[in-house]
Amino acid sequence: MKRRNAASVKIGIVDTMFARVDMASFAIDEIQKKFPGAKIVRSTVPGVKDLAIGCVLLDEKEKPDALLALGMVGGAKIDAQCGHEASIGIQIAKLRLKKHIVEVFVHEREGADEADLYSIFEDRTRKHAVNAVLLASNPSELSKFAGRGKRQGRADAGQMAPAPKKSR
Amino acid sequence: MKRRNAASVKIGIVDTMFARVDMASFAIDEIQKKFPGAKIVRSTVPGVKDLAIGCVLLDEKEKPDALLALGMVGGAKIDAQCGHEASIGIQIAKLRLKKHIVEVFVHEREGADEADLYSIFEDRTRKHAVNAVLLASNPSELSKFAGRGKRQGRADAGQMAPAPKKSR
Amino acid sequence: MKRRNAASVKIGIVDTMFARVDMASFAIDEIQKKFPGAKIVRSTVPGVKDLAIGCVLLDEKEKPDALLALGMVGGAKIDAQCGHEASIGIQIAKLRLKKHIVEVFVHEREGADEADLYSIFEDRTRKHAVNAVLLASNPSELSKFAGRGKRQGRADAGQMAPAPKKSR
Amino acid sequence: MKRRNAASVKIGIVDTMFARVDMASFAIDEIQKKFPGAKIVRSTVPGVKDLAIGCVLLDEKEKPDALLALGMVGGAKIDAQCGHEASIGIQIAKLRLKKHIVEVFVHEREGADEADLYSIFEDRTRKHAVNAVLLASNPSELSKFAGRGKRQGRADAGQMAPAPKKSR
Amino acid sequence: MKRRNAASVKIGIVDTMFARVDMASFAIDEIQKKFPGAKIVRSTVPGVKDLAIGCVLLDEKEKPDALLALGMVGGAKIDAQCGHEASIGIQIAKLRLKKHIVEVFVHEREGADEADLYSIFEDRTRKHAVNAVLLASNPSELSKFAGRGKRQGRADAGQMAPAPKKSR
Repeated sequence: MKRRNAASVKIGIVDTMFARVDMASFAIDEIQKKFPGAKIVRSTVPGVKDLAIGCVLLDEKEKPDALLALGMVGGAKIDAQCGHEASIGIQIAKLRLKKHIVEVFVHEREGADEADLYSIFEDRTRKHAVNAVLLASNPSELSKFAGRGKRQGRADAGQMAPAPKKSR
Repeated sequence: MKRRNAASVKIGIVDTMFARVDMASFAIDEIQKKFPGAKIVRSTVPGVKDLAIGCVLLDEKEKPDALLALGMVGGAKIDAQCGHEASIGIQIAKLRLKKHIVEVFVHEREGADEADLYSIFEDRTRKHAVNAVLLASNPSELSKFAGRGKRQGRADAGQMAPAPKKSR
Repeated sequence: MKRRNAASVKIGIVDTMFARVDMASFAIDEIQKKFPGAKIVRSTVPGVKDLAIGCVLLDEKEKPDALLALGMVGGAKIDAQCGHEASIGIQIAKLRLKKHIVEVFVHEREGADEADLYSIFEDRTRKHAVNAVLLASNPSELSKFAGRGKRQGRADAGQMAPAPKKSR
Repeated sequence: MKRRNAASVKIGIVDTMFARVDMASFAIDEIQKKFPGAKIVRSTVPGVKDLAIGCVLLDEKEKPDALLALGMVGGAKIDAQCGHEASIGIQIAKLRLKKHIVEVFVHEREGADEADLYSIFEDRTRKHAVNAVLLASNPSELSKFAGRGKRQGRADAGQMAPAPKKSR
Repeated sequence: MKRRNAASVKIGIVDTMFARVDMASFAIDEIQKKFPGAKIVRSTVPGVKDLAIGCVLLDEKEKPDALLALGMVGGAKIDAQCGHEASIGIQIAKLRLKKHIVEVFVHEREGADEADLYSIFEDRTRKHAVNAVLLASNPSELSKFAGRGKRQGRADAGQMAPAPKKSR
C-alpha cells in the first residue's frame, strides 16, 4: 500500500440495504468535511455477509487506498452469528487485498433506546471514516492516540492510570 | 467481475436435498418473471456444508455472473453449527471466485409455524434472487435502498428516524 | 472436476481410529453393491481433526473423483469443539482440492441408545457414500431430490406443504 | 508427501513454554524407544497460538515428514477460546504444508486431579508420537485400527457392537 | 525466516488506539533495555480487528524479523467476539508472512481491579516482547523453558510434579 496525502486519498465505502440507518451518508459527509480533496467510491450489498466480497469487487474496479465496510448486525440470535461470519470474511479479505478495510458494525442491541442506537451509528461511522483516511494517508497520526482508550460509537474510555509500583 | 445487462446475466443456483422446500423453484420463477432474458444454471448438493464447493464447481463449469446458495439449517443444535461452518466455507468461496454468492439460508426454527416458515422460504429466496441478478448486472440499483432496513423472509424493518440533535 | 460414469468413478475414503464403528466398511459395501465398477481408495487417520489433511494427502496420491470424510465426534464438550475445527478444515480442503469431500460425521450424543447410534452410523454412511458417487459421476441425479427433506442417519423429513396463499 | 521407512522418518516437534508438563520429552522418549532410527527435530514457542506458525517455520528449516504440535489449554474461559483459535491455525497450517501435524492438546480441566491430568499428558503424547511416525512412514498400519474407538489420553473406548438387524 | 543475532534483530510492533494502556511503550522499553542493539518499527491501528492487516502492512514496509500485535479486548460480550475474530485474522496473517506475530491480548475483564489489570498489561507485554526477540534471533533459548508453565501477565504456573508411576 502506497501512502497518499489525505487530500488525494481514495476511500471505498461498501454499505448494506439491511442496515436501518444510512451509514454511508455519515461517512461521506465526514470525509468531505474533513478531507475535501479525498475521493470516495461506493457500492451497496444486501447484508453484512456480502461486505467482504463487496469490498474485494469494489477494490478490483476502483483501487481505493482503504475501505470502509459499514453494516448493522440485527438483534436476533441468528443475526449475531451472521455478523461473526461476516467479520471472518472481512479479516480474510483484508489479507487478500493487503489493504485496511475498517469494519464499522453496529449491533441492533447495543443501543439503550432508538435515539441512543442512532447516535452510535453516527458517531462510530464518522470516527472510523476519519480513521480510514488516516490509515491510507498518514498512519503515524494514529500513533499519537495509541493506548488512549479511543472509542467509536461512544465517548472515549480514556487511558488507565498506571498502577502504583510494587516491588517486582 | 464484468457487469452485464440484467437481460443477459447468467445466474448459478446451488440448492440442497436436505431443505424441506424446493427453494430453487422460487428463485427460477422469480428470475424468469422479472428478468426474462437471464440465463440460469443449477446444481444440487446433499446439504448446506456442500454448498461452498458446489458453487465453486458450478462456477468452474458454467461461469455464471453471480451465484445463489440456497439451504435450510435444521432445528437441532448440531445443525446450527453445520450452518455456521457452511457459511464460513461460503465466505471463503466468494473470495476465491471473486464473485457474489448470495447466501439464502432459512433456519428451521425461524418460523412461528409451518405456514410462516414456508412463507419465509419463499419470500427470502425470491428477494435474494433479484438481489443476485442486480449485483451481477446493475449493482448501483442496490444503493437506492442503502440503509433502508430491507429484509428478506419478512417485511422490511424500514429506516430508523434520526435522533433529535443533541449538542455535540 | 471431470464428470465420470458411476461405473468408472474413483472414490477416496478417509476414516478414523477414534470412531467406535467401522464406518468405512459401510461405505465400501454400499459402493460395491450399488456401483460395482467403482474404484475405492482409502486411508485412516487418528481422529476427525486429521481428516482434512488426510483427504488432501489421499487426493495427492490417488486422485479420486470425490472423497468421503468419515468420523465420529465424541460426547464430551471438548469433542464438540474438535468436530467444529475439523469441519472448518474440511471446508477449506474442499476449496483447495476443488472436489467434493462429503463429510459424514456422527455425534456420539445423537443416538437415543447404542443401537440407535449404531443405526445412525450405518444409515448416514451408506447414503452419503451413494451421494459421493453421484456427485462425482452424475450430479444432476441429485436435483431430482432438491428440497425434498432428504436425511442421512434418519428417515427423510420430507417436503413441507406449501403455505395457503395469502394476498401479497 | 513421500512415505518413508519408519526407521528413517524425520519428525518435527513443536511444544510450548505455557504447558505445565514437558510434553516433548514424552514424545522424544517414545519415538526413540519404538523407532530407534527416526530423526527428531524440535522447537519451542510461548503458547498454543504460536504452534501453527512454529510448525511452518520448523518445516521450512528442517523438512520433517510429519509434525507434532504439543500444547496445554489452560483452565480459564479465555484459554478455551485461545485453544480454539490455535486449532484453526493448525488446520490451515496442515493444508499449507500438505503434511500431517498431529495436534496433541491437553485441556487443564480434563483431569480429575493432578495425577490424572499428568497421566493424560503422558498417555496422549506418547500415543500420538507413534501415530505421527506411522502417518509419515506406514499409514496403512492405522487402517488396522479404523473404527476401533482408539483414544489418546485415556483407555480406548473400543468398538460398538452392531445393532440387531431391523427390517429395513 | 533467517535467524538473526538478538542485537541486530528488527521487531515490528502494532498496537491500538482502543487499548486503555500504552502497551507499545512497555514493549519498546523492555526491548531497548534487554537488547540494546535491536531495531524497533511501529504502527498503530484503531482496534484489535485491524491488527492482522496492520502487521501485514508493517511487514511489507519494514520487513521486521518478528512482530508483536498488542491489543485490549473490551469487557462487553461483543468485544469478546471481536477479539476472537481478530485472533483468527492474526493466525492467518502469521501463516501468510511465515513469521511469528506474538499476540499480546489483554481482556478488560481479566483484572481483579484496575491496578491488577494494569499490571497484567505491563507484565504480559514485557515478557512477550522478550519472547518475540528470542523467536527471531535465538529460538532454542525458549526450549529451556519448554513445559515449565511460563505465564505472561501473571506469575508462572510452574511445572507439574510427575504422577506416581502406576503399573501400565
